[in-house]
Amino acid sequence: MTLQPANIFKDVEKIRENAPLVHNITNYVVMNTTANALLAIGASPVMAHAVQEVEDLAGIAGALVLNIGTLNDGWIDAMFRAAKTAKSKQVPIVLDPVGAGATPYRTQTAKDLIRASAPSIIRGNGSEIMALCGQSQSTKGVDSTSESNLAVDAAKILAREIGCTVCVTGETDYIVSAQALYEVKNGHALMPRVTGLGCTATAICGAFAAVNPEFDKAAAHAMAVMGIAGEIAAEISSGPGTLQVNFIDALYQLSETDIKKRLKA
Amino acid sequence: MTLQPANIFKDVEKIRENAPLVHNITNYVVMNTTANALLAIGASPVMAHAVQEVEDLAGIAGALVLNIGTLNDGWIDAMFRAAKTAKSKQVPIVLDPVGAGATPYRTQTAKDLIRASAPSIIRGNGSEIMALCGQSQSTKGVDSTSESNLAVDAAKILAREIGCTVCVTGETDYIVSAQALYEVKNGHALMPRVTGLGCTATAICGAFAAVNPEFDKAAAHAMAVMGIAGEIAAEISSGPGTLQVNFIDALYQLSETDIKKRLKA
Amino acid sequence: MTLQPANIFKDVEKIRENAPLVHNITNYVVMNTTANALLAIGASPVMAHAVQEVEDLAGIAGALVLNIGTLNDGWIDAMFRAAKTAKSKQVPIVLDPVGAGATPYRTQTAKDLIRASAPSIIRGNGSEIMALCGQSQSTKGVDSTSESNLAVDAAKILAREIGCTVCVTGETDYIVSAQALYEVKNGHALMPRVTGLGCTATAICGAFAAVNPEFDKAAAHAMAVMGIAGEIAAEISSGPGTLQVNFIDALYQLSETDIKKRLKA
Repeated sequence: MTLQPANIFKDVEKIRENAPLVHNITNYVVMNTTANALLAIGASPVMAHAVQEVEDLAGIAGALVLNIGTLNDGWIDAMFRAAKTAKSKQVPIVLDPVGAGATPYRTQTAKDLIRASAPSIIRGNGSEIMALCGQSQSTKGVDSTSESNLAVDAAKILAREIGCTVCVTGETDYIVSAQALYEVKNGHALMPRVTGLGCTATAICGAFAAVNPEFDKAAAHAMAVMGIAGEIAAEISSGPGTLQVNFIDALYQLSETDIKKRLKA
Repeated sequence: MTLQPANIFKDVEKIRENAPLVHNITNYVVMNTTANALLAIGASPVMAHAVQEVEDLAGIAGALVLNIGTLNDGWIDAMFRAAKTAKSKQVPIVLDPVGAGATPYRTQTAKDLIRASAPSIIRGNGSEIMALCGQSQSTKGVDSTSESNLAVDAAKILAREIGCTVCVTGETDYIVSAQALYEVKNGHALMPRVTGLGCTATAICGAFAAVNPEFDKAAAHAMAVMGIAGEIAAEISSGPGTLQVNFIDALYQLSETDIKKRLKA
Repeated sequence: MTLQPANIFKDVEKIRENAPLVHNITNYVVMNTTANALLAIGASPVMAHAVQEVEDLAGIAGALVLNIGTLNDGWIDAMFRAAKTAKSKQVPIVLDPVGAGATPYRTQTAKDLIRASAPSIIRGNGSEIMALCGQSQSTKGVDSTSESNLAVDAAKILAREIGCTVCVTGETDYIVSAQALYEVKNGHALMPRVTGLGCTATAICGAFAAVNPEFDKAAAHAMAVMGIAGEIAAEISSGPGTLQVNFIDALYQLSETDIKKRLKA
C-alpha cells in the first residue's frame, strides 16, 4: 500500500500544533537524542522512570514509549506500571525491544511487556522482531540490511497475534498490521552508524501515534519522516557526527515539499 | 536593576582562571550537555551520585547543582546527603526543580530538598516556580513564554521565605532576591527546542555561584551569558541540532565585546 | 619505541571488517559519545549493565570496557561479574579508573576491580594512574598536562605488578607494558574541553584490543588514532561543541594517509 505525502504532512502539522506529551521510559544512551528528536518534530518529551510518578505521566501522555536498551529490574517494573496505566487510559504504547535475541533477559522482558499490555506499535530491527517470534537468535543483536526483509513473516505473525502494528526497520522499512503492509524505502546508509537512530524512530512513532489513531499509518508516516530527514541530513554531512546533528535540524525544518519530492513508499 | 557587562565578564574570567569544581547530581538526559557547557565556560564538572562519595565531592566543590529531572529515591537520598554537606561547608547549592507541578512526586521532592538545605539559587521555568509556591499545577510541566512573567510574584514569595535567589527563565528571565530584581531579555526562540538548555542554565548558575558570592548577581550574570551565547549560536544554526553544538562553542569563545554588544538587562 | 602507520591502519581495517562487539559498562555522561565513537571507527558497541545479562554479553564480546565514571554499588557488582566472565573466556578487559584519587570510593573500587580480574589495558590520566599506585591524591580528579609525564613511573609499577598495559594520557600519551614504552604526541589542546574524550579513548582501546592481541600495541594504536582524529577535527572546529561532532566524522573517515602524514610516535 502507498502513502500520501499530504497525509504524512498532516500528521506533522498536528504534532507541531498540539505538541503532544510523549512519555519515554528509555535507555541511557539515547535519552538526549530522542528528546531532541521529539522536540524537533514538535512534540513535548518527558523522560521519567520512578515508580512514584510513571503512572501519573503515562496517564496524561499522548503516547508512552518503552525502550529496553539499558534495562534492569527497577526500570522494567516502571515500564509495567506505566504500560498498565496507559492501557487503561487508551494511551498508545510504542515498544522498542532493543537487543531482543541478544540475551535471554531482553527477549523475555520484551515478551512479558507485550503479554502484560499489548503495545499499539512494536518497532525493531529484523533480528529483534524475529526473536520475539522465537524464529532466530542473533548473537550480536545487530541487524543486517537484508534482515528487515526476512523478518516480514515474523512481523505478520506478531501483528496478528498481538493485534498491533509491527514496524521492522532496515534498508527497507516494513510496517505491518492486520489491514496493511507499507514499505518505506527512504533513508541513508550512514544512519545505522549513528547510535540511537533506531530508538529515535521508535520515539517518533510515539509522536505520530499521539496524533493519528490509525497506528499502522502513524508508524509508516513516522518511518517516512525519519528516512527523509536522514537523507536530507546525509547530503550535507561528512560522517555520523555531523549526521546526528543535521538530522535534528532536518526534522525541525521538514516541509511538505521535502516529503513530496523524496517519498519512496 | 541593571547589569554591567564588565562585571559579567569579570565572573567569566574568574571561572576561566579558577576552573571551579561543580558537583552535579543531575538527570540522565542532560549530563553530557551540562558537562560540556561547564567545560566550555571554563569550570570543572563532576557528575557523581553514589551515597558513598557525594559528601566527599560536595564538600570540596565550588558549587553543588541538584537537578530532579529523572529522579528516583536513590538519587534523592544522594541529593539530601550532598546538600547537607554543602550547607555545612558553605558550598552554594543550586536547585533545578525540573517538572515540579507535573507530578506530586516532583513537587514534593523539590519542596523537601528546599526545606532540608535551603539552596542559594533556585532556577526553574514559570510553572515550576509557581508549583513550588502551591500557586499552579501545570499538567504538562512545560512553560509558555508568558509564564516567566506570571511567576514573578511566586518567585518573590519563595525568595523571601527561603532567603535565596530565585531565577525564573522564559522569554524574559527574572532573577529575584530580597535585595534585587533583574530582568534579562537575551536569548532566542529556538533555545527551548533543544533539550536540557534549562538544565544547562542551572549548571551555569553553579559555575557563577562558585566565583561570585552575591548569588543574585551570579544568577543574573549566568542568565545573561546563556542568552547571549544562545543568540550567537542561533545566528549560525539552521535548527536545534546545530544550535546545541554552536551554543557550546559560543560559551567557549564568549568575549567581553559580545556581552557589551548584546546585553539586554 | 616507534609505531608504524601501516600497522595502525591494519588494526583500523580489521575493526572495520570484523565490527567487533565491544561491551561497555560505562558512565551515563559519555554513553552516547563512546557508542558513537565505536560505531564511527567500525566497531559494534553494546551498553548493558543488568546483572541478568552482563555475563551473556561479556562472554561473546571482542572486548569488555569498564568505566567507573558514575559508579554505584549495583553497577560495580555488574562490572565484577562481567569481568570474571570475560577473564574466563579470554576476552580482553579495558579499565578506565575515572576519578581514582578524587574519592576513596573510586580509588578502592578501581583497585578491587583490578585485583579481582586483571585488565589487559588500564587507561587513565596522570592523577588517576598515580592514585592506583598510592602515589598521589588529586583533590579534583582533573589532570594537568604535565602529569602524564610524572605518572610514567607509576604506570611502569602498575604494568609490572598487574602484568598489563597501562596507558597514561595527557599532552603526551605514554603506553607502558613489560616489553615496551610508546609515546604518542598527537592530539589537540581543545580535546580536554570536550567531556568524555578520555572515556572515548578507553572505549577505542577496547575496539583495538578486540582485533590486536598485543595489547600494548593495540593501546598505542588506539591513542594515535584518537590524537590524529582530534587534530583533524580541531582544524575545522571553532570550539568544543563542533569538535565533539567533527571528531566522530574524523574517526569515521580516517585514512592510512592521515596516519602517515600526522603520526608523532
